[in-house]
Amino acid sequence: MIDDGLTYTEFHSKGMGLILRLKRCITSFDTKFQRLDLYETLDFGKLLTLDNLVMVTEKDEFIYHEMIAHVPLFSHKNPENVLVIGGGDGGTVREVVKHKTVKNVDMVEIDEDVVKISKKYLPTMSCELDNPKVNLYFQDGVKWVEDKENYYDVIIIDSTDPVSIGEGLFTSEFYRNCLKSLKPGGVLANQTESPFHNPEWVEATYKKLKKVFPIVKMFTAYVPTYPAGVWSFGFCSKDVDPIENFQEERYKEYNLKLKYYNNDIHKGAFAVPQFVKELINKSEV
Amino acid sequence: MIDDGLTYTEFHSKGMGLILRLKRCITSFDTKFQRLDLYETLDFGKLLTLDNLVMVTEKDEFIYHEMIAHVPLFSHKNPENVLVIGGGDGGTVREVVKHKTVKNVDMVEIDEDVVKISKKYLPTMSCELDNPKVNLYFQDGVKWVEDKENYYDVIIIDSTDPVSIGEGLFTSEFYRNCLKSLKPGGVLANQTESPFHNPEWVEATYKKLKKVFPIVKMFTAYVPTYPAGVWSFGFCSKDVDPIENFQEERYKEYNLKLKYYNNDIHKGAFAVPQFVKELINKSEV
Repeated sequence: MIDDGLTYTEFHSKGMGLILRLKRCITSFDTKFQRLDLYETLDFGKLLTLDNLVMVTEKDEFIYHEMIAHVPLFSHKNPENVLVIGGGDGGTVREVVKHKTVKNVDMVEIDEDVVKISKKYLPTMSCELDNPKVNLYFQDGVKWVEDKENYYDVIIIDSTDPVSIGEGLFTSEFYRNCLKSLKPGGVLANQTESPFHNPEWVEATYKKLKKVFPIVKMFTAYVPTYPAGVWSFGFCSKDVDPIENFQEERYKEYNLKLKYYNNDIHKGAFAVPQFVKELINKSEV
Repeated sequence: MIDDGLTYTEFHSKGMGLILRLKRCITSFDTKFQRLDLYETLDFGKLLTLDNLVMVTEKDEFIYHEMIAHVPLFSHKNPENVLVIGGGDGGTVREVVKHKTVKNVDMVEIDEDVVKISKKYLPTMSCELDNPKVNLYFQDGVKWVEDKENYYDVIIIDSTDPVSIGEGLFTSEFYRNCLKSLKPGGVLANQTESPFHNPEWVEATYKKLKKVFPIVKMFTAYVPTYPAGVWSFGFCSKDVDPIENFQEERYKEYNLKLKYYNNDIHKGAFAVPQFVKELINKSEV
């Protein structure tokens, strides 16, 4: 037990938080958009924070990245053209390119420094960012979808919280542009915060999503270093149901060596606790 | 934001833990068996710890208690006679007596002080401990099941961790006695620790359970104040499958006002992440 030295503490409500023991700070600076810190933790590998919020740790990032990528991709009949908004660490893209059908991935990340730091220090996440199928654009995802029409099979919004630079990725106008950017049969997945600590964000987000997309479902996953240890994701589409249209045969055929996602989880993750169900139903229009 | 004053910190691995801001300590003493502390937290209500491990907070206890009670009870055809081992705070019994079929609940808690403190300070949990259907026995649960045979419909093991006084509740001999104590069609649920932080405990426990019970499944729930925010439970029986034998009609008929458990969760909770599946499969005999 190390009792002296550096710790990282993040309160997720006024009175409840996460504490991580650190070996050292690797780098700490202000990018054009946000404060970026990279730490070596005692037993969670490297930790990346943006504006003092945990983005990823090397130990548990697999959960978030597998879930935000494979749930939409294994719900789509034949995903070829994929857009990832945000996701500068590269973890989402690493999962997306595991799908053999995928021919092109546009990754639109506003903050080039996140990608630079990830390429330098987080190779297990950034390992596919130089894959020839992947195009990196350091631009605002909100603007990116404004002029796209009938273009992507899958859109994944791997954003920060709905504050400061992440805010535009939680608006009705952005969602409408995403819908317009999707081809028929297309699906969108986005991170939709912690239903336990941020019920008001969750309620507001689903209200907006449901006004735009004909099909909106929530799925969840355990992420130990995220608030309350549970994270929610939105599944949105015109015409694809994640359970009915689950491409289980393709999942079995691929035989990916994943650590969190599997065919049971694909279906079970859509079972949400009663208090969350009521929160989302409040947002029925 | 309160920056000064009392905090409760619990490390769940060497380097990762939970931190809770406290208003004050209500009581702190050594019972015959363990150290007991009761705190008023800033925003999680009252917090009970035993040997410096979070047992319950008023804010999130509903999750653990609903899941450990309703999953086995709604899997049983007609649960009349129920045994709860441990569970001194009363939260599990509160959920059990919501089932109209239940005629008798034996609660066997080794530490009378836990019940006393709960009755005095945690009324929302202990509220059904004086229910005429409930018999309290301040005895060792390990001994209790030694001479029972073909007696209970449902056994719920609401124990502390498999260390010190909780240890006997994680042995093969105890599990064999539980099996013997169950009637045909009987089911047992027990808390089986955090698969993320304590994989070795989980593996060892399921190995033992599988040697004793013909049917052994794991289900999980989000518990924000427990290690890694995810908790696992065992579902064990001779002949009852929790999904195939789910008494969904009874669930609908009861129309209980629950906050976590529902019919989707009953089924979805048995979908476990791939790394957990592999952990349990390791224990195949």
